[in-house]
Amino acid sequence: MHSLSSHLTRPLSSSFSHFRFLSFFHSPNSHPKTFSISQKPPTFSIRSCTSISAKPSSDLRPKRRAAASDAKLRALRNLFPGVGIDAYVIPSQDAHQSEFIAECYMRRTFISGFTGSAGTAVVTKDKAALWTDGRYFLQAENQLSSSWILMRAGNFGVPTTIEWLNDVLAPGGRVGIDPFLFSSDAAEELKQGIAKNNHELVFLYDKNLVDEIWEDSRPEPPNKPIRVHELRYAGVDVASKLSSLRNELAAAGSSAIVISMLDEIAWLLNLRGSDVPHSPVMYAYLIVELDKAKLFVDTSKVGAEVLGHLENAGIELRPYDSILSEVESLAAKGAKIWLDASSVNAAIVHTYNTACEKYYESLEIKRKSKTKAYEDSNGWSEGPTGMYRVSPISLAKALKNDAELEGMRNCHLRDAAALTQFWVWIEEQINKNVKLTEVEVAEKLLEFRSTQPGFLDTSFDTISGSGANGAIIHYKPEPDSCSVLDKKKLFLLDSGAQYVDGTTDITRTVHFGEPTARQKDCFTRVLQGHIALDQAVFPENTPGFVLDAFARSFLWKIGLDYRHGTGHGVGAALNVHEGPQSISFRYGNTTPLQSGMIVSNEPGYYEDHAFGIRIENLLVVKEVDTPNRFGGIEYLGFEKLTFVPIQAKLIELSLLSAAEFDWLNDYHSQVWDKVSPLLDGPARQWLWDNTRPLVKQ
Amino acid sequence: MHSLSSHLTRPLSSSFSHFRFLSFFHSPNSHPKTFSISQKPPTFSIRSCTSISAKPSSDLRPKRRAAASDAKLRALRNLFPGVGIDAYVIPSQDAHQSEFIAECYMRRTFISGFTGSAGTAVVTKDKAALWTDGRYFLQAENQLSSSWILMRAGNFGVPTTIEWLNDVLAPGGRVGIDPFLFSSDAAEELKQGIAKNNHELVFLYDKNLVDEIWEDSRPEPPNKPIRVHELRYAGVDVASKLSSLRNELAAAGSSAIVISMLDEIAWLLNLRGSDVPHSPVMYAYLIVELDKAKLFVDTSKVGAEVLGHLENAGIELRPYDSILSEVESLAAKGAKIWLDASSVNAAIVHTYNTACEKYYESLEIKRKSKTKAYEDSNGWSEGPTGMYRVSPISLAKALKNDAELEGMRNCHLRDAAALTQFWVWIEEQINKNVKLTEVEVAEKLLEFRSTQPGFLDTSFDTISGSGANGAIIHYKPEPDSCSVLDKKKLFLLDSGAQYVDGTTDITRTVHFGEPTARQKDCFTRVLQGHIALDQAVFPENTPGFVLDAFARSFLWKIGLDYRHGTGHGVGAALNVHEGPQSISFRYGNTTPLQSGMIVSNEPGYYEDHAFGIRIENLLVVKEVDTPNRFGGIEYLGFEKLTFVPIQAKLIELSLLSAAEFDWLNDYHSQVWDKVSPLLDGPARQWLWDNTRPLVKQ
Repeated sequence: MHSLSSHLTRPLSSSFSHFRFLSFFHSPNSHPKTFSISQKPPTFSIRSCTSISAKPSSDLRPKRRAAASDAKLRALRNLFPGVGIDAYVIPSQDAHQSEFIAECYMRRTFISGFTGSAGTAVVTKDKAALWTDGRYFLQAENQLSSSWILMRAGNFGVPTTIEWLNDVLAPGGRVGIDPFLFSSDAAEELKQGIAKNNHELVFLYDKNLVDEIWEDSRPEPPNKPIRVHELRYAGVDVASKLSSLRNELAAAGSSAIVISMLDEIAWLLNLRGSDVPHSPVMYAYLIVELDKAKLFVDTSKVGAEVLGHLENAGIELRPYDSILSEVESLAAKGAKIWLDASSVNAAIVHTYNTACEKYYESLEIKRKSKTKAYEDSNGWSEGPTGMYRVSPISLAKALKNDAELEGMRNCHLRDAAALTQFWVWIEEQINKNVKLTEVEVAEKLLEFRSTQPGFLDTSFDTISGSGANGAIIHYKPEPDSCSVLDKKKLFLLDSGAQYVDGTTDITRTVHFGEPTARQKDCFTRVLQGHIALDQAVFPENTPGFVLDAFARSFLWKIGLDYRHGTGHGVGAALNVHEGPQSISFRYGNTTPLQSGMIVSNEPGYYEDHAFGIRIENLLVVKEVDTPNRFGGIEYLGFEKLTFVPIQAKLIELSLLSAAEFDWLNDYHSQVWDKVSPLLDGPARQWLWDNTRPLVKQ
Repeated sequence: MHSLSSHLTRPLSSSFSHFRFLSFFHSPNSHPKTFSISQKPPTFSIRSCTSISAKPSSDLRPKRRAAASDAKLRALRNLFPGVGIDAYVIPSQDAHQSEFIAECYMRRTFISGFTGSAGTAVVTKDKAALWTDGRYFLQAENQLSSSWILMRAGNFGVPTTIEWLNDVLAPGGRVGIDPFLFSSDAAEELKQGIAKNNHELVFLYDKNLVDEIWEDSRPEPPNKPIRVHELRYAGVDVASKLSSLRNELAAAGSSAIVISMLDEIAWLLNLRGSDVPHSPVMYAYLIVELDKAKLFVDTSKVGAEVLGHLENAGIELRPYDSILSEVESLAAKGAKIWLDASSVNAAIVHTYNTACEKYYESLEIKRKSKTKAYEDSNGWSEGPTGMYRVSPISLAKALKNDAELEGMRNCHLRDAAALTQFWVWIEEQINKNVKLTEVEVAEKLLEFRSTQPGFLDTSFDTISGSGANGAIIHYKPEPDSCSVLDKKKLFLLDSGAQYVDGTTDITRTVHFGEPTARQKDCFTRVLQGHIALDQAVFPENTPGFVLDAFARSFLWKIGLDYRHGTGHGVGAALNVHEGPQSISFRYGNTTPLQSGMIVSNEPGYYEDHAFGIRIENLLVVKEVDTPNRFGGIEYLGFEKLTFVPIQAKLIELSLLSAAEFDWLNDYHSQVWDKVSPLLDGPARQWLWDNTRPLVKQ
């Protein structure tokens, strides 16, 4: 799957969604702090996701929808006086900054009707506005009723959320938010932004106003059972992981950490869940202290095996909703909590800070009255303090151990077998002139994958795009509007799966008939970029952005480029997008690529209204045995995880260098060697046919 | 000439020397603010210039030198009580942060005896210490008397200047500096650093203490005549340049600018001087206001032609020493001065700030007494304010106009002709077994260049390094210690010239006998990197660091690298090093490469105690006529300025791709076409022999 353009801009966190949200606060020219080194608007402002086309739709604002929408807005506004606010901001997020969220937390979708993954709704007493980015302009136009103003974020002259609030509210306005749905950083940004016009940010802890009006139709929170992620896949037991974490806490002078990213909790505890689509995680918070640890989770999800697993690791269970009171008691006993303010929500951080203030106020009272209690107290230097820094789990999780890598290698071969069966099937159907929609194709792929051992879920919504739909970078085909595959068009398929032992993410672009010279030229240049990155060797401590240009240089030569990053991190049997590393033209992320990290290699090219091309493999960063080691350091390179043929007919062989030619033949030879043992019959024959060495002309 | 590693780290200024100095204040792990986005010590800390070897020397601390050195230190310390200081810091700089400085300003060399280009001396009442970097450790060891402590900056455990001062001074120490010799930023850094231990930074305006003891033996300040840089070379007249600058000042709300960088003054006024070696500049300050401009210069350098030229442009002359009083009067009349604090010295900035304070104090007195004068005054909002930002001249100067580019193209061909004659001569000598020292060779090269029309000077000290000396990146051969050229060794020659119409900078590495397979392997990979950068096409708004990896990737494949940047800016008949652009692994400099900028392309490889390889051409950034323009933007590439053969015998042809092979033959064909018309006899024959197409094997 290509890396979401907004994802890869976050340098210091393993989460992605937060930044996407923040981007609606900022104007496109006021870059976030990671770009503050730039003298000028950085390079990529012109490449940001603003001109991506979308398929047309005739479903334009039916009146019925407007009435329903108005009723919701009316109900929401009726709640304003009771809580004393003039506006309410409804982000896309859940309380954990998750990329995929449970339906019951899709408040922004419920209130606005807009189902895209990124967007922020703001409702005032007389206005309602929704911000989304270029990927979703057409979709939002279609889905929003006339009660809503569509804010095309990033377009010239479109205000940010903050600018708009400052503009429409009378001075001294009160802007309400659910503080669980904002990272502490995002809430602070919003607070400071509206403070310029003397508006006040109001944290509404007690109830989410959208939930109030959603009432009975609101889906139940997910409560699927949690399972233990077997040690043979996890590689390291929970006790060892906790011990490393506690060493880091102690070294930093912290006595506790609050972890809210769901994949971090799943990784640390060797647990997996099924609370959200695509990501094998469960809703929970985790607090690790130097001598104990508490998991805040709906205990109905915890069966006997998991309970034993947790008890073994010394982890106590607490109700999910008791997180704030625990944070308060930690402050009261003087705990110095490590907090990643870019992911931990504002409710937690603000509660902790308020409790810290109380601690020092009471100390001051004791000091003044010179009570015995004061003499006994630990004094000021021993008091609670928030230690704001990047979560230490993000990097630890990114550096895969041998068992995790083994699982990733294995599941990729099974995934390749399923894909081979799928390609055989689709070619047969096309040759029989069977009409296949993009959705049917995605469903069939799921069917093939489901037969593989250890299959659990897709790792994201399959991007199945025929012809012009392939040029829509975040295309999601819908049954009632999607296209039919066509022998005369390119077909782009970006998909992935969750297996018990690993996570896959692969893109192939194919043509079922005769590609044009233009398509072959573009495809070959994308392939050359893919090969250049695959073959890169680089010194340790190199951040991913240093390698990004390798993947673009062949497109640049003819004045082409693509508007997304080249690589994102991938979890091991976890989230398909993870940090902290990335390979992108955005140079804010300076995390060095390190041995054991997994990254995608997915250059592309997209011709609006015509076709899309992307070639994606997953790679593992590994040490390379170079004949020299200048500087006494390691040199790193990549090992491929993905083994699926690249369609030869799309390659303009005359463009390839001898080395690129050899790369292709060597790759296909490896695909045959590794995947053919899992196949028989037509699929095995197809693999044979599609991995034979090409001959130089 | 390769780019000094310390040069390319400064993102926002056209000067380089300042940072080199700053580096002695900082420990190598506390990176300057440009790297503050980095989570970890950035990549390049391991690549910094710390382990470069130098040639041995037997000239170890003779006693005579110690006695002279002690006398100087005694004399200096005798001045401390009179000005009330406990320590005196003597940097390498002149008052303009110049790279090359006049001998009379080489105070650090005079006091310490160390002649290297980078270093900071600190003298306390009982200690004397000198900081320099890895390039100069051996030289400093040899040149410093036993009264001096050598501080090997960047080595583990070696304190920075600030750390050392904080360590050796008794609390409340007073540290004196000449405020003209520190940029405002550098002085502020020193001030804050020593303030931690309650030491005070004392600005000694009235006299430089080293000058006091230098007395009669101090060389006179240079007073060579200034000349007009002809309009046919400059391309744009002074009035137009001033008009553009004034528009920028007005747009920023400034009413004046103080310019102290000598090349900026020379460029803006279409003047050239001869005050320092290698750079055709004159010592001066320039103040441009919205309606007038004043040049502060030793008027004895200004002849009738220059006087008329200046009068035409409405520029008044003022004595060089009157800069501070002018700054004071500007403040008094409420001028808002644009100041680049990274280049303008602390004396000017501090004088202005003090005068601003006086302005507001007097306004306050008037306000309290409600005098008539107060009523008449412009009030607070109209008062003077320093506007601290990057000099606007740096970028304007970097974007060469057609006339400047034409001059650069022309002088490079004459330079190539001189180099051809030189290579013929040197091969003849070697073949006749004549012993040639590195210095003799450099002198002969100068002789050939001097015969070319418009020749003025070398553009830097020629780096003429045989065998192991080639591995010393900043090698400067000295007559009494340099090596003799050897048929069995590689020879690296990095040199350049100032011509009336342009500036050159070229490196070639050659072998006069049979290179080893290792040397050919390394040379070929350096050449492949050179070609990859030369051939790069990239979207507008791309900073140079994005392209840096192209030049390294072939070395990286076998675990090799080089510890310097790949390209620096070059002036047009001006400084051989200029900003703001650069091509470096350091990503602090985000200045985009822009059409009309000149950069060097000089990858290298250095094997300690064995050999050095560098291949350097100058390039002009230009628009490329790509068949597509994705994103509606320009795509940029390079045009070569340098046309001198690359030695074929050092190339391992089997490593080259077909495209690289074609590049080489095409380049040599261009060299023949462009340079042969300037040659006859053996030189023309040599050029023919060395530019014939290579044939694939």
